[in-house]
Amino acid sequence: MDKKRIGVLLSGCGVFDGSEIHEAVLTLLYIDQAGAEAVCFAPDIPQAHVVDHLTQKETNETRNVLTESARIARGDIQNINDIDPSQLDAVILPGGFGAAKNLSEFAFKGPQGNVNKDVAELLKALIEAKRPVGALCIAPATLGMALKNQSPELTIGNEKGVVNALESIGVQHTLCKVDGIVVDVKNKIVSSPAYMLGPGIADVARGIKKLVEKVIEMAQ
Amino acid sequence: MDKKRIGVLLSGCGVFDGSEIHEAVLTLLYIDQAGAEAVCFAPDIPQAHVVDHLTQKETNETRNVLTESARIARGDIQNINDIDPSQLDAVILPGGFGAAKNLSEFAFKGPQGNVNKDVAELLKALIEAKRPVGALCIAPATLGMALKNQSPELTIGNEKGVVNALESIGVQHTLCKVDGIVVDVKNKIVSSPAYMLGPGIADVARGIKKLVEKVIEMAQ
Repeated sequence: MDKKRIGVLLSGCGVFDGSEIHEAVLTLLYIDQAGAEAVCFAPDIPQAHVVDHLTQKETNETRNVLTESARIARGDIQNINDIDPSQLDAVILPGGFGAAKNLSEFAFKGPQGNVNKDVAELLKALIEAKRPVGALCIAPATLGMALKNQSPELTIGNEKGVVNALESIGVQHTLCKVDGIVVDVKNKIVSSPAYMLGPGIADVARGIKKLVEKVIEMAQ
Repeated sequence: MDKKRIGVLLSGCGVFDGSEIHEAVLTLLYIDQAGAEAVCFAPDIPQAHVVDHLTQKETNETRNVLTESARIARGDIQNINDIDPSQLDAVILPGGFGAAKNLSEFAFKGPQGNVNKDVAELLKALIEAKRPVGALCIAPATLGMALKNQSPELTIGNEKGVVNALESIGVQHTLCKVDGIVVDVKNKIVSSPAYMLGPGIADVARGIKKLVEKVIEMAQ
């Protein structure tokens, strides 16, 4: 039997302006350990901004989301425009602020902001084809915005402001511990709080492992 | 009992010009899972160069090793100059070309090149204090250069050119599979080939887990 192909949608390389690196790597680890194939991809767009991860201050650099995401993927990554959603059995979005800064405008404008057009189209195509989508940490915010018409059920940890913002656009929020997952059976959406709660990498790893295994199990 | 403090010496963020991200994150995962504390640090120096991980071509950017390493450490990282080796129970060096480009000149000049002075001093201090040092992938090359007077025994996978270069300065090289480790009992050095062999993240994870557990076991 062919391996299941699990898309991993990256948003840069680093928690403050891109994909959260630990969450992305652990997603790749558990996909491989489950005998599935990870297909990394990202939009070929400039990052919303670049943050110095030592000082947490914005710099005046410009970096590209696809190019930086390639660091996590060891170069084995595709432009989202070259991805045929029908060739993916599922998609997982690791967190990190990039998921809410580069894939959508959630971090800057809240749930009324835009979702990147290619990201929104891909997520809708997956859900319409009844293929599962997983999202970690803050990424469920972007997922909730893209799929708000489906009233998705998901978790974003327990950050009140984020929860309220998402509920205001029709998302059903469920509290969840770091080592747990929330499964929206109808929409085939799986989410886990990861570093929205933390605190440590071994903690988030437990939830990410469950999420990856559930997403693969739900993929036809 | 206090947690063992395991130093993790980073060299940037990305396999082609910094720390190999998977190896670094898996090192942090297995340290945390073993109940020890990871102490990330890196030299505050410019990277030897910046490589676009999509095209694998050198760019004309400049980036700083400590600042980029901070992406892997989620900002929780120290300048190597602020590290007191006596406060570390062990040190682990993930691989990636950064370990042989930024921590030493091995990738550019072979084993006759220099090792970063602060890195060399720290590694020597650890070994003299009989504290274990672990190294993954290409990082054993830099370790071998720094400690060549101790005739260290280590593995670098099976790349003939690298093996010959290291043997020429007195390193004892041992072939090792990706899920294995080589233990130099006398010097307390543990190494594993990781992505020198690969091929996948689940493969390298098995060797990294063994290495981390062995290093922690050998730490007093």
